[in-house]
Amino acid sequence: MIEPLPTEDIPKQSVSIVGIASRCAPHKLGADELEAIARRHYSSTPSLEKMLEINRKTRIDHRYSVFSSDHEHWHRPTIPSFSECDSLFKEYGIPLASAASARAIQDWGGVPDEITHLVAVTCTNTAHPGFDSVLCRKLGLKCNVRRVLLHGIGCGGGISAMRVAHELLLGSTQQGVPARALIVACEVPTVFARSELDIMDKTQDVNVAMCLFGDCAAALVLSNGIGHKASEQRPIWNILNCEPTQFDGTEDIAHFNVHDKGYHAIIDKRIPQLTGKCVPAGFQSLISSTPSLALEEKNYVPSNYGWAVHPGGYAVLVAAQDALGLTADDLRASYDAYRDGGNTISTTIIRILEKLRDEHKHGSNQKDKLVLAAIGHGITLETAILTRPGSSSYLHA
Amino acid sequence: MIEPLPTEDIPKQSVSIVGIASRCAPHKLGADELEAIARRHYSSTPSLEKMLEINRKTRIDHRYSVFSSDHEHWHRPTIPSFSECDSLFKEYGIPLASAASARAIQDWGGVPDEITHLVAVTCTNTAHPGFDSVLCRKLGLKCNVRRVLLHGIGCGGGISAMRVAHELLLGSTQQGVPARALIVACEVPTVFARSELDIMDKTQDVNVAMCLFGDCAAALVLSNGIGHKASEQRPIWNILNCEPTQFDGTEDIAHFNVHDKGYHAIIDKRIPQLTGKCVPAGFQSLISSTPSLALEEKNYVPSNYGWAVHPGGYAVLVAAQDALGLTADDLRASYDAYRDGGNTISTTIIRILEKLRDEHKHGSNQKDKLVLAAIGHGITLETAILTRPGSSSYLHA
Repeated sequence: MIEPLPTEDIPKQSVSIVGIASRCAPHKLGADELEAIARRHYSSTPSLEKMLEINRKTRIDHRYSVFSSDHEHWHRPTIPSFSECDSLFKEYGIPLASAASARAIQDWGGVPDEITHLVAVTCTNTAHPGFDSVLCRKLGLKCNVRRVLLHGIGCGGGISAMRVAHELLLGSTQQGVPARALIVACEVPTVFARSELDIMDKTQDVNVAMCLFGDCAAALVLSNGIGHKASEQRPIWNILNCEPTQFDGTEDIAHFNVHDKGYHAIIDKRIPQLTGKCVPAGFQSLISSTPSLALEEKNYVPSNYGWAVHPGGYAVLVAAQDALGLTADDLRASYDAYRDGGNTISTTIIRILEKLRDEHKHGSNQKDKLVLAAIGHGITLETAILTRPGSSSYLHA
Repeated sequence: MIEPLPTEDIPKQSVSIVGIASRCAPHKLGADELEAIARRHYSSTPSLEKMLEINRKTRIDHRYSVFSSDHEHWHRPTIPSFSECDSLFKEYGIPLASAASARAIQDWGGVPDEITHLVAVTCTNTAHPGFDSVLCRKLGLKCNVRRVLLHGIGCGGGISAMRVAHELLLGSTQQGVPARALIVACEVPTVFARSELDIMDKTQDVNVAMCLFGDCAAALVLSNGIGHKASEQRPIWNILNCEPTQFDGTEDIAHFNVHDKGYHAIIDKRIPQLTGKCVPAGFQSLISSTPSLALEEKNYVPSNYGWAVHPGGYAVLVAAQDALGLTADDLRASYDAYRDGGNTISTTIIRILEKLRDEHKHGSNQKDKLVLAAIGHGITLETAILTRPGSSSYLHA
């Protein structure tokens, strides 16, 4: 058990990221594999040909699926029911989440029963109890770990979870007690691939999501620094602030709507163009709500920061790059995460953080502040700003 | 905009409940109505007769539904699809949630754009974006209100939402900024009544949930007290602590499992018996984790507190009453909420709080500390302890 420090010894500390890990699903899903699956079940139609054409031009090298190419999921003649999709998530998704969590806990250097909070997120499963309840048992977390399972936010989920965990841990600091939060994002969109292909065949509406989403789980460990032990990793980043913005008039731009066989992704073509407006506006809102940065003009210049942008699609990254006046190299880690794995929904931003952390370990020159941005359902832009410890703002911003 | 107080003026304040309201659905659903609906669509079977027998013995006077007795939902020959259930939740549930929220905001005395956090919960809808996103727009909340939509916790959801909001607001206190959280629970289980009747007819498994659940929305406003304005209601209760406990070996006791037409409730007969074990154990854990109470023996005597227990069913209340050594009068508000509305899932505990607040307004003699307890999926017991302001522990516990 971590002993709480006496109140007066508690420095006004920020919340830090002290563990990161991601696990993409084990089986590669290239453009060819998707084409073979689609053609096995559906004859050629205009929408199928258009989708497969887009699928060859996504600039994704490969995505990953929990299903091997010979798995029955791809070959069965019928569409899996919603409860079968739930069972497949439990059979393949939860072990992936557990592996990513265990690796992040190992990276942190603490032990599972010192985890005080679990903030989990997925948009590719709905269950009561949720996968967070199952994960607690698998990982051996305490019986009164404070669980939060987030719903309804889609690709913004990784940063939403960070925002919630950040404030929960500041709440523990206010109470003078140690707190360590495990954040777990787990997405298995390929369980719905068969029903999405079927809907597209019936409606003849081209579904771009088919070409973008991949399976993955990713985890972070956050610490409020109280009761820090030598075995625990030093902070990788400190969280300065998180800020969500829901944009007016965007209700219909992106949905992941429930239906009898699962969820159907609706992604409006205007998302890249919208990104170009939302990300700069959300960035301004993030900086102006960060006390230590708000008052200086130079802090509103995007290129003064490192960036991690959720790759909704290649055009989304290009739009953000242009709107922020960045270079492709500034978004290198985001482009890399997109090329090798595609859009893995709420887990993607954590994969990008992992890449940036590993690059930094190998001496790559990075700016001391990093801005994260991800567009989720609503349209809600989730943003966060992190700083390297040791830079001026290590202590509370 | 609420002006933040200069840091040194901020008393170590607790988070308070400053607004409460609930809205049961408008249409009474008595035992007779359910029987008429069931017999209209299904011939007599052993499970139907058993369920209708239980339905006459629940001791619920009536439940409420968003659907009037002549609504097409009860009369249509086919089972509504999952997406139709989603549309019905949006058509009837969100307006109920909006009405309860508006009433709680009015009770609080503040204005919508001073709401900094929205913590929403439901287990009777799954949507991306979630109903929290829609509610923000309907209520005119700020575009960067910090949203949390909780999933996977069922009947424990009302207290889970309070726990999360409590800690988020303590996080704002740690940052020295004003915070007001709107908590909204919204449950429309009768959208799934037709599919539940159909499953029971096919499986011949008697489904007790059919007899217990009712439609309702309920809302609370919480404040961290910073920047308090004269227009704002004084605290009704202060939150001392919230504590969840997930019990080993209870994974299979209660589920709300997804299927093609919605969710299917599985409620094990052992829940009342389990309540008798879990509630006392969870109460001990709550008190021992509340710094201002943990060290005195007398604080571990249940009858020293007021109680609000989620009425999973009548037998659940009786089991809790016996296990805690309470009288029926001690749980009067919980029994009343059960009789008039039934088990309205995550909203029920807020209905009970509203009853206790109204009784207190009319001079009823109540103990100055109130314990809340609700068993949710997992099995997870969510507990909280509140105190009347002005009693010794007004300031931070």
